[in-house]
Amino acid sequence: MGVLANLPEKLRAETPPGHEDALARLVSLVASDLAECNRAIVARMDSSVPLIPQLAAHLVAAGGKRIRPLLTLVSARMCGYGGKRHVDLAACVEFIHTATLLHDDVVDESLLRRGLASANAIFGNKASVLVGDFLFARAFQLMVSDGSLKVLDILSRAAATIAEGEVMQLATQNDLSTNETQYLDVIRGKTAALFSAACEVGAVVAERPDAEAQALVAYGTHIGMAFQLVDDALDYAADQAVLGKTVGDDFREGKITLPVLVAYAAGTEEERVFWRRTIEDSEQTDADLDRAFGLIERYDAIGATLRRATVFAADAQRALRIFPPSAYREGLEAVADYTVSRLR
Amino acid sequence: MGVLANLPEKLRAETPPGHEDALARLVSLVASDLAECNRAIVARMDSSVPLIPQLAAHLVAAGGKRIRPLLTLVSARMCGYGGKRHVDLAACVEFIHTATLLHDDVVDESLLRRGLASANAIFGNKASVLVGDFLFARAFQLMVSDGSLKVLDILSRAAATIAEGEVMQLATQNDLSTNETQYLDVIRGKTAALFSAACEVGAVVAERPDAEAQALVAYGTHIGMAFQLVDDALDYAADQAVLGKTVGDDFREGKITLPVLVAYAAGTEEERVFWRRTIEDSEQTDADLDRAFGLIERYDAIGATLRRATVFAADAQRALRIFPPSAYREGLEAVADYTVSRLR
Repeated sequence: MGVLANLPEKLRAETPPGHEDALARLVSLVASDLAECNRAIVARMDSSVPLIPQLAAHLVAAGGKRIRPLLTLVSARMCGYGGKRHVDLAACVEFIHTATLLHDDVVDESLLRRGLASANAIFGNKASVLVGDFLFARAFQLMVSDGSLKVLDILSRAAATIAEGEVMQLATQNDLSTNETQYLDVIRGKTAALFSAACEVGAVVAERPDAEAQALVAYGTHIGMAFQLVDDALDYAADQAVLGKTVGDDFREGKITLPVLVAYAAGTEEERVFWRRTIEDSEQTDADLDRAFGLIERYDAIGATLRRATVFAADAQRALRIFPPSAYREGLEAVADYTVSRLR
Repeated sequence: MGVLANLPEKLRAETPPGHEDALARLVSLVASDLAECNRAIVARMDSSVPLIPQLAAHLVAAGGKRIRPLLTLVSARMCGYGGKRHVDLAACVEFIHTATLLHDDVVDESLLRRGLASANAIFGNKASVLVGDFLFARAFQLMVSDGSLKVLDILSRAAATIAEGEVMQLATQNDLSTNETQYLDVIRGKTAALFSAACEVGAVVAERPDAEAQALVAYGTHIGMAFQLVDDALDYAADQAVLGKTVGDDFREGKITLPVLVAYAAGTEEERVFWRRTIEDSEQTDADLDRAFGLIERYDAIGATLRRATVFAADAQRALRIFPPSAYREGLEAVADYTVSRLR
């Protein structure tokens, strides 16, 4: 789409070599933990009600990068944890994430997720709502088995914050008077809260001092913000085949994201009329998505979004300095680069 | 609708006098606890995201009988509990119930709930899904504040069981080959599990021996079964104004409930063709609901459902015998009568 040509030269030059391997590197650091975690996910998704494992199998087949459970596993190891509790807790984190995905797809009426038909498209909205509820309850059962009230506190608070962020997003939908602070609040709730909790749990199982737990909270929050900013940029910048979801979904739904806010703020009065018609009044023709892409390119809105993400990624890396250098810390630092590099 | 005339004389004669006051009596036993619980519900539904308290206010305004939190409050007092923990835990129980109601109404596409427009009809399905998620997470936060892993275990297991029951109900929808055992499994999950957990929590906060906790599990399960059986009967037997929800909803949705299973099993081949067309193929004309009412009356399907409910109510009362006589025990016994008497 030519959007990449708009990236500031400096940003592109800074892209670390081999950044696309950051997740693979993280996986290699905790390969056996992750294999156990995947087994726990499959085992605990089971139920005597056949539709639940059927839908769960679809979700497992669709894969996903397991980035959140990886953060729990690597954070725990970086903190010197030598036990096994982090494996089930990483599965809890993935369950909470999967439950919110199922409900998101219902709310967003999405037809694609991770390049496959979304669960609601195959099994219907009703099953997605109810299986989401099941996974959420199952996550809490797993946490109760672990037995740490501290972990339960962190993840139940994260779950409430995610829901608040999602409701806030619903309230700002189709509303171009939303400001950047409100947008950042939405993504802090809907995305960064779980990244943050996933990392914090690692420090908690390792029984590290609060300063280290808070450093991981900061790291998780910042990469969560970077991750969502880049996700929102990708919806206006990626090839559908690469993205694994439908490009332009956010535009069609009238979702307020930073690329739109930047282009709207910088636009002429005639362009603002276009945005109000398409985003606020949801009146869209086939040609409108291309016009939106064009305006976003004209005002370098992808570049602006990416620059914000890059600052968050750098803050995430800075937060890790409290920890002594290790392969785990390097792995987490590389993930911060990865969140931003997905766009380049 | 003339259905009441079909009730066996014996059942009507057994109806205890003043049964309609059973809930008022329960309320009077724990009036100040309930007032505190209601304050906790309102306080903990709050959020900085305005749509959440707005939707919550609608739910609180719609009221509801608070039967589940009342069971927690009265069970705890019957067990001799003198503290305050049961108040917040009763609020948790109501939050879990409210969250499932919000999601149910989305799944069932209901327009009425407790005689008012349902939340999804006013605020939309999306808000109902997300605020349900918020209330569910908030319930777990409240439990974590209470700090009992035993309570967390009971209520997280109940939440998973409820979701399984709801998924099972979805799987049996429009399927007349569903048998009575499967139907009873559905209502045990979707309804009885939370009644049971609500009662068990009362014994747990009072630190009573396991035998008493199990007696309250049995009591709660049985009144939950009775309650849902009567609810399913009411959908074919009540005046809309009395029921507070749309009569005939279950029929229109092709939901498999005991009245339909009884009439279908007893019906002629021509009647079975009618049921298959309306319930399995979802082909319904305006006159079909009246025909369904007529067939249900012809085979005394409401009477049969009510007789099942009456057995469960008696089992519930029997389970309470382990406890010494008290106003609390009498109150719970009266609730068992009440669940059945709603139909008479």
